[in-house]
Amino acid sequence: MRRSIYDSDHEAFRGSVREFLGRHVVSHTDRFVEERGFPRELWIEAGKQGFLGLEVPEEYGGSAAGDYRYNAVLAEELAGVTAALASCLGIHYDVVAPYLVELTDEEQRRRWLPGFCSGELVTAIGMTEVGGGSDLAALRTTAVRDGDAWVLNGSKTFITNGYSADLIIVAARTSPEKRAKGITLFAVEAGMEGFTRGRKLDKVGQTESDTAELFFDDVRVPDANVIGEIDRGFAHMMERLPQERLGAAVGNIAHAAQILKETIEYAKERKAFGQPVGSFQHNKFLLAELVTRIEVSQAYVDQAVMAHVEGRLTAVDAAKAKWWSAQAQNDVLDACVQLYGGYGYMNEYRVARAWRDARVTKIWAGSNEIMKELIGRDLGL
Amino acid sequence: MRRSIYDSDHEAFRGSVREFLGRHVVSHTDRFVEERGFPRELWIEAGKQGFLGLEVPEEYGGSAAGDYRYNAVLAEELAGVTAALASCLGIHYDVVAPYLVELTDEEQRRRWLPGFCSGELVTAIGMTEVGGGSDLAALRTTAVRDGDAWVLNGSKTFITNGYSADLIIVAARTSPEKRAKGITLFAVEAGMEGFTRGRKLDKVGQTESDTAELFFDDVRVPDANVIGEIDRGFAHMMERLPQERLGAAVGNIAHAAQILKETIEYAKERKAFGQPVGSFQHNKFLLAELVTRIEVSQAYVDQAVMAHVEGRLTAVDAAKAKWWSAQAQNDVLDACVQLYGGYGYMNEYRVARAWRDARVTKIWAGSNEIMKELIGRDLGL
Amino acid sequence: MRRSIYDSDHEAFRGSVREFLGRHVVSHTDRFVEERGFPRELWIEAGKQGFLGLEVPEEYGGSAAGDYRYNAVLAEELAGVTAALASCLGIHYDVVAPYLVELTDEEQRRRWLPGFCSGELVTAIGMTEVGGGSDLAALRTTAVRDGDAWVLNGSKTFITNGYSADLIIVAARTSPEKRAKGITLFAVEAGMEGFTRGRKLDKVGQTESDTAELFFDDVRVPDANVIGEIDRGFAHMMERLPQERLGAAVGNIAHAAQILKETIEYAKERKAFGQPVGSFQHNKFLLAELVTRIEVSQAYVDQAVMAHVEGRLTAVDAAKAKWWSAQAQNDVLDACVQLYGGYGYMNEYRVARAWRDARVTKIWAGSNEIMKELIGRDLGL
Amino acid sequence: MRRSIYDSDHEAFRGSVREFLGRHVVSHTDRFVEERGFPRELWIEAGKQGFLGLEVPEEYGGSAAGDYRYNAVLAEELAGVTAALASCLGIHYDVVAPYLVELTDEEQRRRWLPGFCSGELVTAIGMTEVGGGSDLAALRTTAVRDGDAWVLNGSKTFITNGYSADLIIVAARTSPEKRAKGITLFAVEAGMEGFTRGRKLDKVGQTESDTAELFFDDVRVPDANVIGEIDRGFAHMMERLPQERLGAAVGNIAHAAQILKETIEYAKERKAFGQPVGSFQHNKFLLAELVTRIEVSQAYVDQAVMAHVEGRLTAVDAAKAKWWSAQAQNDVLDACVQLYGGYGYMNEYRVARAWRDARVTKIWAGSNEIMKELIGRDLGL
Repeated sequence: MRRSIYDSDHEAFRGSVREFLGRHVVSHTDRFVEERGFPRELWIEAGKQGFLGLEVPEEYGGSAAGDYRYNAVLAEELAGVTAALASCLGIHYDVVAPYLVELTDEEQRRRWLPGFCSGELVTAIGMTEVGGGSDLAALRTTAVRDGDAWVLNGSKTFITNGYSADLIIVAARTSPEKRAKGITLFAVEAGMEGFTRGRKLDKVGQTESDTAELFFDDVRVPDANVIGEIDRGFAHMMERLPQERLGAAVGNIAHAAQILKETIEYAKERKAFGQPVGSFQHNKFLLAELVTRIEVSQAYVDQAVMAHVEGRLTAVDAAKAKWWSAQAQNDVLDACVQLYGGYGYMNEYRVARAWRDARVTKIWAGSNEIMKELIGRDLGL
Repeated sequence: MRRSIYDSDHEAFRGSVREFLGRHVVSHTDRFVEERGFPRELWIEAGKQGFLGLEVPEEYGGSAAGDYRYNAVLAEELAGVTAALASCLGIHYDVVAPYLVELTDEEQRRRWLPGFCSGELVTAIGMTEVGGGSDLAALRTTAVRDGDAWVLNGSKTFITNGYSADLIIVAARTSPEKRAKGITLFAVEAGMEGFTRGRKLDKVGQTESDTAELFFDDVRVPDANVIGEIDRGFAHMMERLPQERLGAAVGNIAHAAQILKETIEYAKERKAFGQPVGSFQHNKFLLAELVTRIEVSQAYVDQAVMAHVEGRLTAVDAAKAKWWSAQAQNDVLDACVQLYGGYGYMNEYRVARAWRDARVTKIWAGSNEIMKELIGRDLGL
Repeated sequence: MRRSIYDSDHEAFRGSVREFLGRHVVSHTDRFVEERGFPRELWIEAGKQGFLGLEVPEEYGGSAAGDYRYNAVLAEELAGVTAALASCLGIHYDVVAPYLVELTDEEQRRRWLPGFCSGELVTAIGMTEVGGGSDLAALRTTAVRDGDAWVLNGSKTFITNGYSADLIIVAARTSPEKRAKGITLFAVEAGMEGFTRGRKLDKVGQTESDTAELFFDDVRVPDANVIGEIDRGFAHMMERLPQERLGAAVGNIAHAAQILKETIEYAKERKAFGQPVGSFQHNKFLLAELVTRIEVSQAYVDQAVMAHVEGRLTAVDAAKAKWWSAQAQNDVLDACVQLYGGYGYMNEYRVARAWRDARVTKIWAGSNEIMKELIGRDLGL
Repeated sequence: MRRSIYDSDHEAFRGSVREFLGRHVVSHTDRFVEERGFPRELWIEAGKQGFLGLEVPEEYGGSAAGDYRYNAVLAEELAGVTAALASCLGIHYDVVAPYLVELTDEEQRRRWLPGFCSGELVTAIGMTEVGGGSDLAALRTTAVRDGDAWVLNGSKTFITNGYSADLIIVAARTSPEKRAKGITLFAVEAGMEGFTRGRKLDKVGQTESDTAELFFDDVRVPDANVIGEIDRGFAHMMERLPQERLGAAVGNIAHAAQILKETIEYAKERKAFGQPVGSFQHNKFLLAELVTRIEVSQAYVDQAVMAHVEGRLTAVDAAKAKWWSAQAQNDVLDACVQLYGGYGYMNEYRVARAWRDARVTKIWAGSNEIMKELIGRDLGL
């Protein structure tokens, strides 16, 4: 069904994103995969287009779009070309931005946001720890007060942009005796003594995104790098979960929708037993189901986007959008691979990579199981 | 997620429907099941409330709501109480109404619509034939010109309201050599010579709705009872499919949503092994999935309702809403039965009846397979 | 795939069961549904054929087959004609028989088994209680010692054969302070003072089987009616679970297999859009999937039957067979209904009744969820 | 459930396979992945153990096991360690062997089989062509008679062992006008003029197996390299399909079963929110379902193995085993990945590789859709 949440301004913006992608990304995806990362120049170009500072006030170099639909359009277009780019940029402009804009003081904003917007300061966020999975309240990285600074010890894993980020927001325990109420956020910057990174993790998919382990060994973080209030880090993270989950959902559906569209074209062209594979009734019905599922899911995600634009998206509704879209994305892409036959198993085909790329969305940023737990609790169960 | 398609006028109307249901339906459902039908007084009461003539101009006794959302609100509330009532009334106010309003001449409107609105003239529509299933173009009932009338021969089956209807719109072949382009619609009225009805069909569910076979044995139908244009019946039906499918989808989701709501309450109260059954993680996750599925489906159906209000709902998008909602309804209700345990197998529990009632929605008014065929064709496959 | 667990003796026995069914059951199924029960004469006929005493020594009138495969053949053939008959007879010859043969003394065997084998003494077993579901250890029916007898108080529900049984094995709590280790089994007989029955329960399916609530109001049960050891009732029941679950699994698959076979024939004959519905690729693939699923499930159930014949079937492996077969049966039958189109919703079609009949198998005798809990525990989880 | 198709001789053989794997494979799997292939020494070692010549008479260097269960044990153990090794060796000892043993003359057997058994002559089979998929009857590679030889032109793709094989059985069209009845099999050997290979294909999984495109440009193949009868190649292939499909099914289930076993151990050890992840009811039930599914599928595959041992496995029953096992394998492994959380997305974890490795089994050697088509036809649909 025709979508109705975007007006002509959003579509004009979509056009500029597509132009950017056409010029700087589309023909380079193989290289990004080989290099297992996106070059800094790409960030700089994205910065020039104003994509990185969508949520940042103009005085700090941002474009201050003031409407989440621009984030959504950007997420959709990135995901349509490469899921990994959507992840890497998304962590920055969609996930980290609210922390640096809303929880910082004027000095911090002046220090960080111009580079954030220009692409010179790439960011990441470090929540997950080895063995900790989705249980944020149990994190073991500590920050102990020592003189005029905090001393961080611990590690983080599965950090998108972790290998290349200049600034990472790290959640650490400042009051050991309190679980969720003893966590503080710190901006750890590249070059700080005691801060090291592991190798780029060898992932099933999204191989262009640099994902890494981070290690903190007596890293001294000054007060000027505390993000938000002491011991309020958990609350700061919780408040930003709706947007993080929504951003994931938007990308999930856009990614699957684009590959599905290409698969339908392929199914019209590829022949077997003398007829287009898409004309076999089994495949025709299957594609009808997939298209319906994508459109239905899109309607829900669109509804969530509008709720967020109006400031009333709850963390639980965002959780629904996140797990549902991740499941839909994965199921749709598995079916698309099958429709490509043996070619669907070859990495040179987009569908093959997309299938591998998508697998992580049911796991990261709160697994589907965590989402269902939250929804169940919200039902009073 | 909070729905956003209804305003306060729609909600006020919803209140009046609920009052009607509370007064005339809720406590009588067992009786309707026993009598295998709804009494004519109920139709009359619905007529008094203006429910039957939502699409009928005021000059003919209708309430001329002029906004499909009133139809949708009515469908939702009816389905929430009894799926069979939603079917029986829905065929009348939602499916048949557009035929009698849009395809009739002034004389016909004056003759039929006042009774239509008051509940004195109950209607049905006869498309399906034995052995014909969803293949409308192949129908075998014929109407042959004879003097100043048409002589109908043939039969129809699975006709909702068929046993009690005063007027049935019957599709018959007027040009045998043309498939889809040789069909005309006729208003067959109770009492016409040669028109008989079979017994009420013994159905798996929706046992309160009277469903019957209709037989036409040299039934003379005068020109004054032709609906629409000669040989254009197929087109007339196709043009009204979006609304018929949408009405089905609205009811499907409302029905499942209501039973799911009751099931969640039940799961909070019913205990097993010393704790509420809903607190077992398996059930908690299951209910989280079901709630998500209903909300996601609702978003799509709501989007379709708005598209229809704005006159741009296509038959294919309505087909997507119909099959998807029917599948969701059936899967959700099967899970609800399971959550009730043995009680879910007892007809005195609403969930048991609802499960049986729902089974037909994947079949009637174009089976899920037919919907997928249409969607596949629309994709160019 | 060709099954290999039966030899010519089993197949000869199958022939005799089929002859019995052809003569006394096949053409009377509508009547059984109307009367909501099977007449006693049918039990007597089954007794004459030796079907009821398959597990009973010859000295008490049994046929002492000494090989569980005869039970399995009987279950398969009964389920192929009517699931309800398979349930009613199965409770007797397959579930209750081991209790009355293995846990009784000579006097009890002489008193009960001849009638048990002839069909004059119909039996049932009463475990489930209102609100208790599958949690046997929590049962609330009590038996208190009073002079030379036990005084039973409480009730049971969902008891197959409950309305017509002459003897019911009732589990009651004899040592209130011990959970599973304080339960004893009693033979409650028709006519005992204080023993009453509720109405036949109005079920979604299996409407020919009489299912009822049983009430015990100061029922005095003499020592001579204690089955097995005092306080060992739970263990007695647990030891017989593998056979009960296996019997259910055998019937589940046979029931679905038979209806699937008929559906394939129907799909070859019924035409839509000018060709047999089974020739549409969607349906063809679907039927291929269903046939595979049934054959695969049959292989597992057959393996379980042989394990039971050899005395090494565990309760957990039987639990796997039970839940898997119930799920397969229900999914297969739902697909069969769909293949019948509107006719699948008409109770006069076997497929419609079969679909309703099957729904209970995921619930009774330990729901699928209970089975999974047991399997999970067995995995050490 | 305990399996029963193997006796102590089979288990002793299993022990020798495990010893071989422990010595030569287990600790080298990372290297094989890096090198994207298995070294020839591994083939030689396998040859020394007699694994390659299981179907080859002793006079040609084979071990002439004379019982398909040895093939099955070998397939199970290989798949339990690396799916790719199972594929590469399986193509040789299980798929190609029957061609070279049964369709050859004495001279050919003497020429090829000793090397085949020792691992010095690695083989492959070339059926699939670009754009041809599973439609063997439509193949376009041609062999034209020219003097005393056949001149081959065309290409093959997705050929397992294609990059390293010394001898490839190639299906080519010898009678262009006849579809299935005009195909002949040729042994193309490394070094033949005009025979070249493309690069190793970059696959989603099974990256250790060398898969390649093969090109034939006026390759002269002497009569001495014709396998079987002229124009009977299609029949030769069809006759060997049951074993090929069965071998795939055996490996599919063994692969999934092994990873599932490891996942259960992991779920007992890995903790989240203070308890083993396997103890959460959702995961417990999920693992119960997966274990059941594997055991049920295993029962069917075992039944098929015994049918093949007894010479009565049909191509259609083998098709059922193949698609069912492939689907089960993929679904089980996807759930296993999810249970590992983020680690399941890291290639250093076996589960991650297994998930990628498995994806091809629904596609190759006749996709699941082709299998369903064949089963449907066999049903007379």
